[in-house]
Amino acid sequence: MEPISFGSDNHSGVHPEILEMINAVNRGHVVAYGDDHYTKEAEKLIRKQFGEQAAFYPVANGTGANVLSLKSVTTSYNSVICPNTAHINTDECGAPEHYTGCKLEAVETMDGKLRPQQIEAALSGRHDEHHNRPRVVSITEATELGTSYTPEEIRRLADTAHKNGLVLHMDGARIANAAAFLDVPFSALTTDADVDILSFGGTKNGMMMGESIIVLNPELDKEMKFIRKQGMQLASKMRFLSAQFIAYLTDELWLENARHANKMARLLAKLVRDVPGVEIAWPVEANGVFARIPKAVIPELQKQFFFYIWDEEKGIVRWMCSFDTEESHVREFSQAIRFACETYEKEN
Amino acid sequence: MEPISFGSDNHSGVHPEILEMINAVNRGHVVAYGDDHYTKEAEKLIRKQFGEQAAFYPVANGTGANVLSLKSVTTSYNSVICPNTAHINTDECGAPEHYTGCKLEAVETMDGKLRPQQIEAALSGRHDEHHNRPRVVSITEATELGTSYTPEEIRRLADTAHKNGLVLHMDGARIANAAAFLDVPFSALTTDADVDILSFGGTKNGMMMGESIIVLNPELDKEMKFIRKQGMQLASKMRFLSAQFIAYLTDELWLENARHANKMARLLAKLVRDVPGVEIAWPVEANGVFARIPKAVIPELQKQFFFYIWDEEKGIVRWMCSFDTEESHVREFSQAIRFACETYEKEN
Amino acid sequence: MEPISFGSDNHSGVHPEILEMINAVNRGHVVAYGDDHYTKEAEKLIRKQFGEQAAFYPVANGTGANVLSLKSVTTSYNSVICPNTAHINTDECGAPEHYTGCKLEAVETMDGKLRPQQIEAALSGRHDEHHNRPRVVSITEATELGTSYTPEEIRRLADTAHKNGLVLHMDGARIANAAAFLDVPFSALTTDADVDILSFGGTKNGMMMGESIIVLNPELDKEMKFIRKQGMQLASKMRFLSAQFIAYLTDELWLENARHANKMARLLAKLVRDVPGVEIAWPVEANGVFARIPKAVIPELQKQFFFYIWDEEKGIVRWMCSFDTEESHVREFSQAIRFACETYEKEN
Amino acid sequence: MEPISFGSDNHSGVHPEILEMINAVNRGHVVAYGDDHYTKEAEKLIRKQFGEQAAFYPVANGTGANVLSLKSVTTSYNSVICPNTAHINTDECGAPEHYTGCKLEAVETMDGKLRPQQIEAALSGRHDEHHNRPRVVSITEATELGTSYTPEEIRRLADTAHKNGLVLHMDGARIANAAAFLDVPFSALTTDADVDILSFGGTKNGMMMGESIIVLNPELDKEMKFIRKQGMQLASKMRFLSAQFIAYLTDELWLENARHANKMARLLAKLVRDVPGVEIAWPVEANGVFARIPKAVIPELQKQFFFYIWDEEKGIVRWMCSFDTEESHVREFSQAIRFACETYEKEN
Repeated sequence: MEPISFGSDNHSGVHPEILEMINAVNRGHVVAYGDDHYTKEAEKLIRKQFGEQAAFYPVANGTGANVLSLKSVTTSYNSVICPNTAHINTDECGAPEHYTGCKLEAVETMDGKLRPQQIEAALSGRHDEHHNRPRVVSITEATELGTSYTPEEIRRLADTAHKNGLVLHMDGARIANAAAFLDVPFSALTTDADVDILSFGGTKNGMMMGESIIVLNPELDKEMKFIRKQGMQLASKMRFLSAQFIAYLTDELWLENARHANKMARLLAKLVRDVPGVEIAWPVEANGVFARIPKAVIPELQKQFFFYIWDEEKGIVRWMCSFDTEESHVREFSQAIRFACETYEKEN
Repeated sequence: MEPISFGSDNHSGVHPEILEMINAVNRGHVVAYGDDHYTKEAEKLIRKQFGEQAAFYPVANGTGANVLSLKSVTTSYNSVICPNTAHINTDECGAPEHYTGCKLEAVETMDGKLRPQQIEAALSGRHDEHHNRPRVVSITEATELGTSYTPEEIRRLADTAHKNGLVLHMDGARIANAAAFLDVPFSALTTDADVDILSFGGTKNGMMMGESIIVLNPELDKEMKFIRKQGMQLASKMRFLSAQFIAYLTDELWLENARHANKMARLLAKLVRDVPGVEIAWPVEANGVFARIPKAVIPELQKQFFFYIWDEEKGIVRWMCSFDTEESHVREFSQAIRFACETYEKEN
Repeated sequence: MEPISFGSDNHSGVHPEILEMINAVNRGHVVAYGDDHYTKEAEKLIRKQFGEQAAFYPVANGTGANVLSLKSVTTSYNSVICPNTAHINTDECGAPEHYTGCKLEAVETMDGKLRPQQIEAALSGRHDEHHNRPRVVSITEATELGTSYTPEEIRRLADTAHKNGLVLHMDGARIANAAAFLDVPFSALTTDADVDILSFGGTKNGMMMGESIIVLNPELDKEMKFIRKQGMQLASKMRFLSAQFIAYLTDELWLENARHANKMARLLAKLVRDVPGVEIAWPVEANGVFARIPKAVIPELQKQFFFYIWDEEKGIVRWMCSFDTEESHVREFSQAIRFACETYEKEN
Repeated sequence: MEPISFGSDNHSGVHPEILEMINAVNRGHVVAYGDDHYTKEAEKLIRKQFGEQAAFYPVANGTGANVLSLKSVTTSYNSVICPNTAHINTDECGAPEHYTGCKLEAVETMDGKLRPQQIEAALSGRHDEHHNRPRVVSITEATELGTSYTPEEIRRLADTAHKNGLVLHMDGARIANAAAFLDVPFSALTTDADVDILSFGGTKNGMMMGESIIVLNPELDKEMKFIRKQGMQLASKMRFLSAQFIAYLTDELWLENARHANKMARLLAKLVRDVPGVEIAWPVEANGVFARIPKAVIPELQKQFFFYIWDEEKGIVRWMCSFDTEESHVREFSQAIRFACETYEKEN
């Protein structure tokens, strides 16, 4: 049997209601490549969340959503300012640089969250043609470190970006978890906070596959269809992507899923917070717990539970919860952590 | 109600057995990005078809399969010799050129099929650095014009390619239809014919989405995982792609589907062949019928039936059949064609 | 001793007045990368020729001028309509495709010259995201086949391009030869004919190295400095490029050089036109002569004179004249051709 | 009159002997694109310096040399480890990322010099396809901060690189200054130290324009001609580049020039070292002096002397010396610095 997984929110499967919708749209012939009524219905639901100006482009995956978002607002001599922990900087095999030609100007942060003054700092200095011309600020909500920007923080980043002629992109692979944590609608973190373009994900929150780009600033919605097709992200039988978004956005399924995952993460953090040798690295503001634990206990724990080491050098591990993480597993896991750490402490 | 569609084999939905398998694998957590046992199972079935040396890389879609296949065997100053009707040349928004940097050397053909002497001709002339250096021959099986290469024809192309230091790539978006038409296994058209790398598709034959690259020549299987990830084609919950291949390759579902689609195409061709004003443009060797018909009857027919004009100038239309095309619809369609053409003839 | 060369107009060296100017500007320190007064002076001379709106960007070579011109007006999903004989299509090792990502839509012509209706034809058909979106028409003046567009012909191409939302680019590697042939100023072929962007060359007409981009349509002059630098075309000691343009544009040196080269080409054509077996392939409207000659005589002639075979299959050779081609050499060459062909005829 | 320039070693002109050679090769017609005897002669001189296995490719400029060197040994999913002060990282408008597709893994250093353990550190961590695969270590000799690696230091970097399957690239824009400082031949810093590929520059040391790539490891010399042509770096009248290298490598002109520039830099450093408020930032091991000086004195000094601020925040300026920097100017400059700083100190 596979060990219980706190490895990633994409180790989970598909939420039953989403799978049901996939099954439901499997009827007859419809036009391919997005000219179908399911996609139109999904688009309507997107606009209900993000406003009437929002343009919705389902794509194949999250890397595709991020890279094509950036591609659509840049030219090759631009640069993208982002935290150095950004997924685009660390986990996409250089796809952003390769596909857009842009340099990533990766900035060190305390907690995965960029600050307005860091944008200003990245912009200072020589502005001539020997250097890339900055064009985008990219932030992740919730961040790769499990923290979340507040709407106000996002707006201040947007203001700083816009004041300097830059575009604000949000990697929203876990935006549902942030919205659930902050108890706000998607729009509060995006449209209302003046985000320009969003990678809107659902796979980590119960969808099967396929993510999307939502262009919130209509001035930037230029020929995205060409970018998506040339970017190898256009699904032929698109109804099966759109169906997922329909189910996801109906009856707040997204919120229910995200709330559960977040709750499990908070529970886990709470249960291990006082374990000797355990230190929670960053505030638990989404569905992940990052903790420093004694390196020696990690291999033993990994025999029973699946999780990743986040920072080998600093001894930080990452425990991710999902829409289907069971409370009993969280409790079981926390007990195993406690046992391992206490044993370790006694022996050392 | 939507008109009955002969528009494309990707207007159809998903074959029930494939959808069932997708539902079946939705159990618990498994590791993401292909390190799961479903993907291993799919790989086994692939190797049963294509030989033990075959390496299997599920990707997001057919454009991705083609472009990354080419990328994996080229560098930017290479060129790709292909028929000018090739999907990579006409229908991928320039993704092959953009992503690989290569020039496509598109060669005119009678019937969508490249001949060995055309490879030789494309190679003659100056070989210095002012010209791209040819590196790949790319053919489509079955072709975009509904014809199929025989195993012997493929082998001769492979021989010519290899003799000249080139690689043979096959776009197999409809390889099942060719195999069904020729009544041979996949391996006869690929491994045994010395094809080096294959875009192995299933979406047009009953799968939901996701295609694959199969590297048949192990010497060319260099770090494809990096190419796939950077190429924005790596699915996180890959089990849902692999599940489709499992169902597709079990109990010859692929063959059953392709045979049906081919049969419907042949039936349609047979029923309209003697209609006045109708001329079948190319031999019906897969699931598509291409016909010259009087331009004037097209708009009327398109009100009842969905299909595309293939060549505006020459008045050629394309009628595609699918795994779920119903015989009654084919008959109905053929009668409508006959009626429209006969009426037109009388009036003119 | 090297054989007398009719191989290429870039087999010649540098015109003495240009070399003298290079020597003259070698005084003291000046700011690098084009912020020097020599470059400003060259720019003034350029504006005198092309109008006050013209923006001047010296670059490293002709391929650089062409590729960055195209890059500056396209994005990766665009395409470029050009004659199939265009230098960008045949002699730049795929640099245009690789660097811009665009597809070249190469059109067959009779004489190297594109016609307006060919632009229209290339634009017809499907306009959706499955195909590249055309954005540029690129023509060469004088053409690679030694013919020249008249100002009126260029204007009609510009009108057709603009009417369809396209940009007109001119590869002016030999624009001086066309202007000399037509007896018009540069502006008649460019600014006044509504060309948008020009690769303005001089190397083939007596300069040492370095070509330039001239943006004639100010709306398209967007951040070209960044494109040039990132495109590896920015010279540090730019005064030595600018000096060449200063000499070239002073006292009509360009015209004197081009007139001479053209005159030599016309003389050569005149002297061999009646030779048995020789057929001039295209009108001699610049400094090159293209001729069909008996294939058998080519090797013997190449022992004494350097020239290239243009089209192996059709038996067409190319004889290029330069600013320093000597009349005696032309006469000597024509006699050798006559002797070889007459001897061949007698023996066969 | 222009202020005396300590702005850059490329503000200087061309050394008279180099210009003389350019004039000398301007005789008659020779084959273009490097198939001429001057280029062969330059190549011989290169091989005398770098060994018989060295392959010599003149290119248009230093960015071209660096970018094409990297391109020739990488594929798009690779990464390049370099100091964060590397010219490729800071001053090439993102050309390396854009043209190679690779990520630059820029490492912080004390003095512009990479250490072997920093390579090891950059290689540790996850090695899967989510991250770029490191392929090159790139160092600059002399560094952008005016320091020089010893032969032994270079060899240790090469060993570390090779042990890990990486290639060592050297940006040798100022390799002459390093060789002069260390009193070793070029080969000691390159061939003998196991450098694989070198950007060999001369423009900053008295040449006019044009730099070169020298492939030292013959296994890596694969179709560089195609890379150079497609990379827009192939000069047609190449003899005028080659001539410069001939003069540069004859009678140790390179050494004489570099020695002079270095001497002027050392003199300047010596003369200002004890000025109150002045602190030499890094050892003066080439032809540049980097100094912290009171920010307030900079504008006044810049009125009389041309130089750049290197680090606005830290108040570091850069003073570059050239092959033609006059000792009297250095003394004059040092007095002005002393005067300005002493005046500033008194007043504050």
